[in-house]
Amino acid sequence: MTPAVPGKVVCVGLGPGDPDLMSVRSDRLVRSARHVAYFRKTGTQGQARRIVDGMLAGGACEYPMDYPVTTEIPFSDPDYNRQLADFYDHWAEKLAVLAATDTVLVLCEGDPFFYGSFMHLYTRLQGRAVVEVVPGITGMSGCWTATGMPITWGDDVLTVAMATLPEAELTRRAAETDALVVMKIGRNLARLKRALTAAGKLDRAWLIEHGTMPGQRVARLIDVDQAPYFSIVVIHGQGRRP
Amino acid sequence: MTPAVPGKVVCVGLGPGDPDLMSVRSDRLVRSARHVAYFRKTGTQGQARRIVDGMLAGGACEYPMDYPVTTEIPFSDPDYNRQLADFYDHWAEKLAVLAATDTVLVLCEGDPFFYGSFMHLYTRLQGRAVVEVVPGITGMSGCWTATGMPITWGDDVLTVAMATLPEAELTRRAAETDALVVMKIGRNLARLKRALTAAGKLDRAWLIEHGTMPGQRVARLIDVDQAPYFSIVVIHGQGRRP
Repeated sequence: MTPAVPGKVVCVGLGPGDPDLMSVRSDRLVRSARHVAYFRKTGTQGQARRIVDGMLAGGACEYPMDYPVTTEIPFSDPDYNRQLADFYDHWAEKLAVLAATDTVLVLCEGDPFFYGSFMHLYTRLQGRAVVEVVPGITGMSGCWTATGMPITWGDDVLTVAMATLPEAELTRRAAETDALVVMKIGRNLARLKRALTAAGKLDRAWLIEHGTMPGQRVARLIDVDQAPYFSIVVIHGQGRRP
Repeated sequence: MTPAVPGKVVCVGLGPGDPDLMSVRSDRLVRSARHVAYFRKTGTQGQARRIVDGMLAGGACEYPMDYPVTTEIPFSDPDYNRQLADFYDHWAEKLAVLAATDTVLVLCEGDPFFYGSFMHLYTRLQGRAVVEVVPGITGMSGCWTATGMPITWGDDVLTVAMATLPEAELTRRAAETDALVVMKIGRNLARLKRALTAAGKLDRAWLIEHGTMPGQRVARLIDVDQAPYFSIVVIHGQGRRP
């Protein structure tokens, strides 16, 4: 008789988008998984699921976790918070039940602990299931590599900020740092461009869409008038260089 | 007759230390490389070379690049700059010559464009050789994953700073950010602890040594009195969480 093998929840960072940039460990876990869960916007395939296309084993059970809301309601609305909390409660329970007898993989683009949605399941799963996290190459690493210029040198300070911040704060953050990464662009593009102009750095900013993926686009931000939510802006540091 | 294949220089990010966290692409390039260069401190094996132990093909030529100086001279000394500039000039020339006829791999722990030494060769190789860079999981991702706590949530601002900065600047950076990563600890530990105390955040700081590697150690910074140069301090963000 085989002894019972306790299951667990393993969240695998998939990296910036090119499947070849997944870690050896994540690649192995994805190819051998029997239960695979992933977040997605309703009606789309989802970025995480797209990255592993053609890699899942035949017979793997898939659990798409459809966000009840993404950008339709402002996140300051209490209803946004309540709907998302219910959603994470529901899926934490479902994954805990699966993990009682089997291992379930949760796919996560980039690095799970770096602005990832998985953390909301992670906190809810504490004490209810064994949970492991496999780090990944961040989307921002993929994007600054795509620009062909190092992001930080010597003692440069790097600031990572979301374009959802108020304009005055974006301006201050941009002015006070050596290197800058801004995420969550989308409808915040115009405000971000004003903030970088005020900080005197618009001409040094680059926008990267679909970093490391088909359709990758690297452009000077000054030339860009529209960008998806998941594009990234970078300003490279200029630090010490012997 | 086989047409001449032009060579190139490929810098591969090796990730935070565990070879299983290398990307699929870096893993494949490392195992098939004929020429392999890596930085190291004279008299040591070097972290990058250690990560690929047992992975190099038989007959691969190795090119250890021994730093002429690391922490023996302060980097404000003009002699520090001159010695390093000569060193990078020398190796850029050597790699350019190799790349004229073959592909040469440069190993780099972490992510090459994120505070990596390779960038000093990269700039010197422009126009002299085809150069490619493969991103890697950063050391800091490996370290915050090791703490078992997400580093950033919602709209958190993340600041990455070196412990070599003046105490007042470290204090200000720590006070004004949500999440913090500090690198290059070593002899700067006491100053960093004073700065985090002044910022009111010492009790939230963690120190990670040898993240993802044998001998990994995660400790509250308040309990630590000595740490190697390549350890990392993190303070986790506390942002929005439905």
